[in-house]
Amino acid sequence: MGTDEFGIRPGEEMAALPARFDAGLYFIGRLRTPWLARQDCPKNGLQSDAVCTVEVDAAYAPGLRSITGCTHLILLYWMDRATRGLIVQQPRHADGPRGTFSLRSPARPNPIALSVVELIAREGDLLRVRGLDCLDGTPLLDIKPYYATTDSRPEAQVDRAGAEP
Amino acid sequence: MGTDEFGIRPGEEMAALPARFDAGLYFIGRLRTPWLARQDCPKNGLQSDAVCTVEVDAAYAPGLRSITGCTHLILLYWMDRATRGLIVQQPRHADGPRGTFSLRSPARPNPIALSVVELIAREGDLLRVRGLDCLDGTPLLDIKPYYATTDSRPEAQVDRAGAEP
Repeated sequence: MGTDEFGIRPGEEMAALPARFDAGLYFIGRLRTPWLARQDCPKNGLQSDAVCTVEVDAAYAPGLRSITGCTHLILLYWMDRATRGLIVQQPRHADGPRGTFSLRSPARPNPIALSVVELIAREGDLLRVRGLDCLDGTPLLDIKPYYATTDSRPEAQVDRAGAEP
Repeated sequence: MGTDEFGIRPGEEMAALPARFDAGLYFIGRLRTPWLARQDCPKNGLQSDAVCTVEVDAAYAPGLRSITGCTHLILLYWMDRATRGLIVQQPRHADGPRGTFSLRSPARPNPIALSVVELIAREGDLLRVRGLDCLDGTPLLDIKPYYATTDSRPEAQVDRAGAEP
């Protein structure tokens, strides 16, 4: 599928973004992964067994206390190379355009990505985890404990065939 | 448990936050819930059957296209009243202080909250959802489809007794 001079594919739409931000983020660390180019990244975190490293900056490392009681974590990180205005997107292999909020694409008004990872070990200010799919060096925003009671919904479904116009 | 003049409880630690933000966020809408004061909010989204409303600003509403194919969504929202520097916390009913990243407390360096909700209906630029626990008027940051394959981990556990010092 071709793109025009602005990198927009047919059927895609851009939203006009405000002139000013409403809130600000601190990068609290970095994600270290084996993937140095976008085309090398797995499609999702389950497609690779690679053990990746969460580097937490020293100022925030006291926040890791008691984390080894968790078998799984939610990581929030910043897709700093994503286009933020793309509000309707044409995924490469989809039969028509999709709303950004129906996709996990990094291109979104606030490019915060989320992965559920398995916590393998803590080594000082580092966490070894399995289940990431992002580029090496991606900025880290948050680490949360994963609770099966509230975060696990095995019955959830995504029906692409039923996509409304 | 008492608090000192800075609102810090015994055992709690503050991190020095940087002078400048690393990235900026746009508020893309608001969450409408029945809860007008913090003490009225349910402890988590499963403790209430209330149907809440996601109001998406008109500029971002095209991003809702094809969302009704999803039975469940992940909502990211901004806990705009939270203390950002609190890196070790003493939860009211815990036997000792915990690292912020082992807790789902709104107080964290980047106060991005996450809820998995059931999508009941879309009505124009509004979504009706079940599973929220936040204050009425909370700023919305993102909406993502929930994929059971990557987001559901029924086997996950959080062992508070095993909390390291």
